[in-house]
Amino acid sequence: MSRRDALQIGADARNKAARDALSIYRAGVEAVRADAVLGRTISIQGPNLRLGALTFRREAYRRIVLLGAGKASAAMAGAAEDILGDWVTDGLVVTREGHGEDLRRVRTLFAGHPVPDEGSLAAGRAMAELAGGMTSDDLAIVLLSGGASALLELPVAGIDLDHLRATNTALLRCGATIDEVNAVRRCLSRIKAGGLTRLLAPARIVCLVLSDVLGDPLSVIGSGPCWTESSSAPSGLATMERYGLEQELPQPVVSRLRQAQPPSDSGPPVDHIIVGNIRTAVDAARARAAELGYTPAVLTAAMEGEARVIGALAGAMVRDRPWTLESSPVNCLIMGGETTVTVRGSGIGGRCQEFACAAMRSLSGVEDAALLVAGTDGTDGPTDAAGALIDGRSLDLALGQGLTPEQALAANDTYTFLNAADSLIRTGPTGTNVGDLVIGLLAPSA
Amino acid sequence: MSRRDALQIGADARNKAARDALSIYRAGVEAVRADAVLGRTISIQGPNLRLGALTFRREAYRRIVLLGAGKASAAMAGAAEDILGDWVTDGLVVTREGHGEDLRRVRTLFAGHPVPDEGSLAAGRAMAELAGGMTSDDLAIVLLSGGASALLELPVAGIDLDHLRATNTALLRCGATIDEVNAVRRCLSRIKAGGLTRLLAPARIVCLVLSDVLGDPLSVIGSGPCWTESSSAPSGLATMERYGLEQELPQPVVSRLRQAQPPSDSGPPVDHIIVGNIRTAVDAARARAAELGYTPAVLTAAMEGEARVIGALAGAMVRDRPWTLESSPVNCLIMGGETTVTVRGSGIGGRCQEFACAAMRSLSGVEDAALLVAGTDGTDGPTDAAGALIDGRSLDLALGQGLTPEQALAANDTYTFLNAADSLIRTGPTGTNVGDLVIGLLAPSA
Repeated sequence: MSRRDALQIGADARNKAARDALSIYRAGVEAVRADAVLGRTISIQGPNLRLGALTFRREAYRRIVLLGAGKASAAMAGAAEDILGDWVTDGLVVTREGHGEDLRRVRTLFAGHPVPDEGSLAAGRAMAELAGGMTSDDLAIVLLSGGASALLELPVAGIDLDHLRATNTALLRCGATIDEVNAVRRCLSRIKAGGLTRLLAPARIVCLVLSDVLGDPLSVIGSGPCWTESSSAPSGLATMERYGLEQELPQPVVSRLRQAQPPSDSGPPVDHIIVGNIRTAVDAARARAAELGYTPAVLTAAMEGEARVIGALAGAMVRDRPWTLESSPVNCLIMGGETTVTVRGSGIGGRCQEFACAAMRSLSGVEDAALLVAGTDGTDGPTDAAGALIDGRSLDLALGQGLTPEQALAANDTYTFLNAADSLIRTGPTGTNVGDLVIGLLAPSA
Repeated sequence: MSRRDALQIGADARNKAARDALSIYRAGVEAVRADAVLGRTISIQGPNLRLGALTFRREAYRRIVLLGAGKASAAMAGAAEDILGDWVTDGLVVTREGHGEDLRRVRTLFAGHPVPDEGSLAAGRAMAELAGGMTSDDLAIVLLSGGASALLELPVAGIDLDHLRATNTALLRCGATIDEVNAVRRCLSRIKAGGLTRLLAPARIVCLVLSDVLGDPLSVIGSGPCWTESSSAPSGLATMERYGLEQELPQPVVSRLRQAQPPSDSGPPVDHIIVGNIRTAVDAARARAAELGYTPAVLTAAMEGEARVIGALAGAMVRDRPWTLESSPVNCLIMGGETTVTVRGSGIGGRCQEFACAAMRSLSGVEDAALLVAGTDGTDGPTDAAGALIDGRSLDLALGQGLTPEQALAANDTYTFLNAADSLIRTGPTGTNVGDLVIGLLAPSA
């Protein structure tokens, strides 16, 4: 699907609540698709280019270059080309296979996600080459979205892909915080943590960010290619020592961490603009729910934690709603964020599918109810589903085929289970990526 | 504290939201205290005794006997004595140390909880002896509340306390469902699963239940002493075979499971009346919140799952409320239920304290907000606290003493942490036990 197409949602809606949940999800996703967010951010006003609150005289710049990385970067480049037309001189974006767009002046590369591959290194080299030709007469518009960290990499000398992968595995296993993990990654990369800014110098740089991280931390989204951390941030060496990783990390990585100094030059100042995030999607979903006649309550846009625990709670909320409606008219619960899955089994599934599976017993038999949970990027785990849409009949459909949610969760095989329950949602790539939406509904009585 | 005293709540309320949260918690607990629930259930109307919708002519019975087991059983007996006066002829209740009351005609025994001890067996023998003297001219009012399963036990011949403990440990470790666990317990006990009914025959029996289990399953609350399971229920033998427990269970237990037959006689019919549960408490809390000027939303009365996951989500909900208030006026979130804790460390704490600890970073710095989570029974884990009340300053108070919530959670040492944050709630035994209340508030702007 191109970002210019209407959003296609394949799903089986068996009651009014399920149909409405799909409509609300659609509104949430459409509000953060590339065309929508850049249409609100980029414009031509006479001789000037506007980026949010910033104004640039076109004639002051020799080139306007679009650079990007992330699952939505090609869609963002396409939307920017549509708005800017010939003002765009050239550019380069790297995205995941299947997330490309027909672009006119911007080149597209494809690379690995969620694990970086040779394509990620090729993209890093291509980006560095393009950046090497930039001058102070050039305006670089960086289009950043979730996934950039894996898709775009340029390691420091002596570090290869295997070193990066081994380091990543060790860091994820040791329990380090995301800040501590990033402290190590910074030392090993010439493009993360402000590295791209230094490569692009002396160009004028504006970074447009479609955020997939709660709270929009610029150092974390895409590993902050245009965000130079203050020198008071923890060092990679400190992380290694704190978690005793000297034996586990590859020797070149240990050596590098011992030698690395914070960059003395942070490059030119960069303007960052958050063009959309999960709150944008949640707000649009809420507005659509109200249009449909519901009384919505947004519970949070910062949902995180083990998917099956939150899913079971969400199921209980929907199941208890007929009772609590006696005292509160809220009949639409909305959450945004991103849960996690602790993998123990060898089945197929994703965080949204685990969430839905855990909620299914609670919803069983509840009439005119629906619970939708799906990624805004159209991808939930290594599956072709964006998430799930369950109702009061879903459980029986799966039980009828001999499957139980408990067994599915034990095996992390929730895709098979939800498929049997006719409860999967499929969209394909959507041209955005801001996290997941949860929509729990009771259809207003007719 | 006697159930006749006003509920005493020790807690440090640093802002209006915290004071209001305590008031809402108090209203929730008071609605399910023994005096309140039995005052709504038991009455004398002329020559008749009313129990819910049931009517008994006093003169039709030789004795009216109060029997009870559970953390609230003495408080329930005291409330029943207050209402019935001299109509009560005698009785026996077993409760946990510290949960006793001054009773006039009903004897109190104390036993172990949550692990049964010799006192539990002595209570079982005393109950059987009293029951042995019952005739069809006697009315037995059974006062059941959470904790009864451990406090009252009468094993079948050849089974002792060590056998029961070893069996319990094996059952909890193997991952069996509560129904499968109960199937085994039924085979080993002469008082659980309808055993008390058979002991009390041929008396007329009414069982008044203060439920601490979601959904009020009569076979589960206190292990169902007056509830005879249908013969289609899973057998203890099936549980043993399914989880391969033959080697792990004590030999007398294995033998018993191989021989046990469902009881051929289920005893006289029993009327069960649910006198209160978590919904009762949640409804009262909601009403009090509305009185205080809040717009409350009850999210669920069936909260369950890992405490720290749900706690973090609840913290995010309170933190996001100033933002979501723009579109929904809900400024008071209420949940009821009971979370669980996976213990990995060796510290001191409880499920409510883990919940609060996980929410604390989210609340930090949020003005006029409070999050209260506490048991209605006044006991959270093996501590003197009922739970916790946190606000926007709590985190700083603990950080100032060198403690972090992450370390506290890693060590399961949340009591120490919340004590440093002046965020514990202490009530002592409350005379009820229906699960936990969660109250998240933003004070209405003055």
